[in-house]
Amino acid sequence: MTTVFDTYLRTCTNLNDSEIEQIVSAAKPVSLHRNETLLQQGQVCRHKTFIVKGLLRIYGIGADGSEHILYFSPENNWTLDPESYHQQTPSQFTIAAIERSEVLLWSKPDFDRLLKDIPELTILSEQLVTRSHISNRQRLFTTLSSTPEEKYENFVQTFPDLLARLPLHMIAAYLGISLKTLTRIRHAQVRR
Amino acid sequence: MTTVFDTYLRTCTNLNDSEIEQIVSAAKPVSLHRNETLLQQGQVCRHKTFIVKGLLRIYGIGADGSEHILYFSPENNWTLDPESYHQQTPSQFTIAAIERSEVLLWSKPDFDRLLKDIPELTILSEQLVTRSHISNRQRLFTTLSSTPEEKYENFVQTFPDLLARLPLHMIAAYLGISLKTLTRIRHAQVRR
Repeated sequence: MTTVFDTYLRTCTNLNDSEIEQIVSAAKPVSLHRNETLLQQGQVCRHKTFIVKGLLRIYGIGADGSEHILYFSPENNWTLDPESYHQQTPSQFTIAAIERSEVLLWSKPDFDRLLKDIPELTILSEQLVTRSHISNRQRLFTTLSSTPEEKYENFVQTFPDLLARLPLHMIAAYLGISLKTLTRIRHAQVRR
Repeated sequence: MTTVFDTYLRTCTNLNDSEIEQIVSAAKPVSLHRNETLLQQGQVCRHKTFIVKGLLRIYGIGADGSEHILYFSPENNWTLDPESYHQQTPSQFTIAAIERSEVLLWSKPDFDRLLKDIPELTILSEQLVTRSHISNRQRLFTTLSSTPEEKYENFVQTFPDLLARLPLHMIAAYLGISLKTLTRIRHAQVRR
């Protein structure tokens, strides 16, 4: 399982062999079955998670009881709830597997120690935060400004690989539109 | 103008006198009149901005030509477009003053140099990014999951001080609802 992560680090960073070994050896590999929960709303997010294989989602439950998906995290991505992780407070979000998944977990104390010991890992960490920050703003702007049709078109362009892996109700819960509206949009596209 | 910023730094950080002096002396004070633009969509975001006095907004224009506000930035806050600033690419957003404002600007090379020279400033910078990251997620979740009534209620709770300083159409453009809907919600509240 660590080979994928090893390749990821070699591609994205200038970490040397011994640093990579140090990071890998601190990780705990975990297998998740389909629909298994990694972080439950109300629990403290105690780990950084790297997705080696599979697909996870992070979502919250609205006042009306419905699920709203913040992000999908496929292989070669990280996931966590930053608020719960950094402040060690109960999370208002749930992280769960959509497919059978293989992930690597680092506890906060372990990852903090790695960040302290390996400056190059701090650079990667800052790049990830910046990238996440940028995509958050982009997603907020799309959510505020786009019509349902534009939101779906944008999703198809941005995540072509995810389309076939996701049930429609999850795409609707990500776009912030009803399943009925999403179905109508897709039918209209097929007819065009 | 730098007294406010000086107090802010002494409150939020453990920076010493000489470090504060170094940061302050690299800042360029700028006065903005009402509605004046600090960053125009299409320009590169070349500065970090601290708001000493007044109120700014960062917004984008949707495909239908309407304004969508990402954030309001009152005094004692920072603003920038992180994507444009970090990648030095044209911004898709505009930053403008809502009120007469006094701001401090640092060019990217100057701020990068300060970050390199002053580790304590890096800590503040990381805290700000983490906080911004957290509030982005919160805002995204509220935008996805809440009814217009809940969005307005949430805004009143979160920014009680801003209510009287903002025209209604800007609150609507921030909440992602029409001015008509916002007016209806406010009338219903008054009647209750």
